[in-house]
Amino acid sequence: MDPKNKENLSKLLQDVNDLLGKNKIVEDLVDKQEMPKQKLIKNLVQKQNLSALGKLLNSLHSADVAFILESLPLDDRLILWDLVRADRDGEILLEVSDSVRQTLIADMDSTELLAAAEQLDTDEIADIAADLPEDVLQDLLQSLDSNNRERLESALSYPEDQVGALMDFDIVTIRDDISLEVALRYLRKIKKLPELTDKLFVVNRSQKILGVLSLKKIVVNEPELMVSDVMAQDAVLFKDSDDAAEAAKAFERYDLVTAPVVNDQNKLVGRITVDAVMDYIREETDSSALSMVGLREGEDIFSSIWKSVRNRWAWLAINLITALIASRVIGIFEGSIEKVVALAALMPIVAGVGGNSGNQTTTMIVRAIALGQVSVSHLRQLLFKEIGVAILNGILWGGVLGFIAYYLYGNSSLALVMTTAMTLNLILAALMGVMIPFTLSKSGRDPAVGSSVLITAMTDSGGFFIFLGLATLILI
Amino acid sequence: MDPKNKENLSKLLQDVNDLLGKNKIVEDLVDKQEMPKQKLIKNLVQKQNLSALGKLLNSLHSADVAFILESLPLDDRLILWDLVRADRDGEILLEVSDSVRQTLIADMDSTELLAAAEQLDTDEIADIAADLPEDVLQDLLQSLDSNNRERLESALSYPEDQVGALMDFDIVTIRDDISLEVALRYLRKIKKLPELTDKLFVVNRSQKILGVLSLKKIVVNEPELMVSDVMAQDAVLFKDSDDAAEAAKAFERYDLVTAPVVNDQNKLVGRITVDAVMDYIREETDSSALSMVGLREGEDIFSSIWKSVRNRWAWLAINLITALIASRVIGIFEGSIEKVVALAALMPIVAGVGGNSGNQTTTMIVRAIALGQVSVSHLRQLLFKEIGVAILNGILWGGVLGFIAYYLYGNSSLALVMTTAMTLNLILAALMGVMIPFTLSKSGRDPAVGSSVLITAMTDSGGFFIFLGLATLILI
Repeated sequence: MDPKNKENLSKLLQDVNDLLGKNKIVEDLVDKQEMPKQKLIKNLVQKQNLSALGKLLNSLHSADVAFILESLPLDDRLILWDLVRADRDGEILLEVSDSVRQTLIADMDSTELLAAAEQLDTDEIADIAADLPEDVLQDLLQSLDSNNRERLESALSYPEDQVGALMDFDIVTIRDDISLEVALRYLRKIKKLPELTDKLFVVNRSQKILGVLSLKKIVVNEPELMVSDVMAQDAVLFKDSDDAAEAAKAFERYDLVTAPVVNDQNKLVGRITVDAVMDYIREETDSSALSMVGLREGEDIFSSIWKSVRNRWAWLAINLITALIASRVIGIFEGSIEKVVALAALMPIVAGVGGNSGNQTTTMIVRAIALGQVSVSHLRQLLFKEIGVAILNGILWGGVLGFIAYYLYGNSSLALVMTTAMTLNLILAALMGVMIPFTLSKSGRDPAVGSSVLITAMTDSGGFFIFLGLATLILI
Repeated sequence: MDPKNKENLSKLLQDVNDLLGKNKIVEDLVDKQEMPKQKLIKNLVQKQNLSALGKLLNSLHSADVAFILESLPLDDRLILWDLVRADRDGEILLEVSDSVRQTLIADMDSTELLAAAEQLDTDEIADIAADLPEDVLQDLLQSLDSNNRERLESALSYPEDQVGALMDFDIVTIRDDISLEVALRYLRKIKKLPELTDKLFVVNRSQKILGVLSLKKIVVNEPELMVSDVMAQDAVLFKDSDDAAEAAKAFERYDLVTAPVVNDQNKLVGRITVDAVMDYIREETDSSALSMVGLREGEDIFSSIWKSVRNRWAWLAINLITALIASRVIGIFEGSIEKVVALAALMPIVAGVGGNSGNQTTTMIVRAIALGQVSVSHLRQLLFKEIGVAILNGILWGGVLGFIAYYLYGNSSLALVMTTAMTLNLILAALMGVMIPFTLSKSGRDPAVGSSVLITAMTDSGGFFIFLGLATLILI
């Protein structure tokens, strides 16, 4: 067996960039000296390069082609996209990220799109449907037979966070009243099982699910045994309306490869596979990492300036408002700052360290909430612990800062204000760091997104207020 | 089939907490009035509750027990841990998070630990070995037969980021010169295949791998065919020294369930399964999210105050230093602030919005680097785009802020300083947001961790310097 089949993607990407680079050098050279002969050579060399690229691309797994397309600036990406064999357009569109898919689809006409979509299964069409122009989607629905049209319509009807949206229709069903021998004969007639098939679904005449029969059980049991004797009746199954995140957790906990999906009447309607679950988990963690800094979606890093501005503006606007509020808090104490200008230099430290510490607390709590590991009943305990941590850190780091303030400005009252303000702001950060994610999650919002902004806003404004307020009371 | 087998974890956790709560109420009541009779009742009620809890726990999947243990404060956790049947200790220790495992192991003596570890496979022992006391590990090595001892020692020898560390030894091998019929007879003799087995590994006499034979192929092909005719010779395989992250990506790209692992001599040494890969991905994304805010490891949210302080201190110390530097930058301009005190109120806005925007840029670049999608050859293009975004945002939001500054302080020069400083700091943020992750990743560090601190340090100090410097030039 040859271990080279696992593509080294960074090497591959390098090759593609090299070939694209050669093209550009030729182009640049010839563009500078517009002579017919050079032009001819240019065309020849380009054709050679492009044909080498095309060969390379069409020898690759579609996931790898998708990766390369995602890694190239828009103009290079479209050159490559034209080189991909038309009959692979569908599977590659399926593999690329949403933002890159939009750039590829924008480059295709309706006929090409329709042809590409027709290569896909109905559950796959559903995955890219959001990016297809309305007219193509309508044409597509027309072109399907009634069975598949129904499936596509039902797949499109599920919200993104339901099991139904993750489901595919590649199910192989058998009856429970046959022997394994007969089951094997049936399978040999089918000849090819869908990807990732690790079990068959046992159903009765009305498609109600009775159990699952793993291929493992088929191959290790005597052929005379009946399906009903060998099948598992207590396997994990999902309702199409179940929460997708819960299903993903169940896949992780119970180490599943596939699981049946039933509707309200307990009828088998599809299956979930571990690769759909992995994609789902990847997307979720990805989008939560991005939304932490206010990016609305996985940005195509080669997208236009204008698109990037739109993707990021909302967050900057919110940040501007919270910064303005903090600025107004400082504004209240302008008189004090005029008298002791050292306050201006020291106040950002109190605010900054508070924000940092609050974000540590919040990150931990958000994670525990996401895993379902803490409930409001632990609130008192968590607050107690976090406030303890804050007091310890306040005395420790606040003490260090007080000492530094004394060293810099020779003012012991200022040092006292520094240490006290630091401790108080860390306690505020601990309180808010625990309360904010719980409150957001109680009110049905995503605690991962809002918490970080809110906590920073609190520790900024709060930190300035505590520090400057204390200074005004004690120093002025 | 009964769909209730999928445990509703939050409901379960509630039940456990209720039972624990009942115990505490009884305890509180009786502690207040120390009478022998009440004490007797207390004991009875507690025993009843505990036996109900024990029954509940021992009916659950070990992954679910692990989840419940992770979700309880330390004292409750240890009560439950004592109720778990001793013969399940091993699998549950395997399932809990590292920090929770340490609390459980601290509660066990050497005999209990040895007994628990002996329930596990060698690859599983390797996974928890880091948390076992040295003497237990030595005893354990003694207790294993030479074959398993060798396996354990080899499993322990792999660094955490290599395929060897993810590998298990649950492999089923066959020869290529037998028919499927014979293969089936062999499997029927084995009776039970390891979890997640989707394929058999075809090897020659010296354990060199020749190909893989999926169970799917076994059940759909005619029994007379030879293994060598049906097996896949081009399946994905890994070296034990391969990068674990690369292997995880390959599992996602090629939708694998299991894959063979070979050593340098191309001999089969184990396999990787999709559930090991999912655990790995989960841990990686988890630890990168935690390290973004400077948490060194997945903190047991119910850990002691002192442990938490230690887990978080390094980050706070770094933050303190960068805050001090920013504070010293302000210190340079104290004269200017004394003259125009509005500067003190406005300067945090310039720094804050810059930091925010820089973090957006950096998050995107870090992600693209992690996916291997950008290289230094795209640097110019990325810088061009990000600076474009910065200038647009600077004019837009800087303009708004200039207007607000004019409205608040009636000083048009101040407004001009505000808008210009904002634009310049956003450009600085864009430059640094692109350069820092590239530089970190070039120097072999994890760009996810350092970037956020560095960028914020730059935009804070830089923002203060640009704003106060401009103000000093223009206003003073």
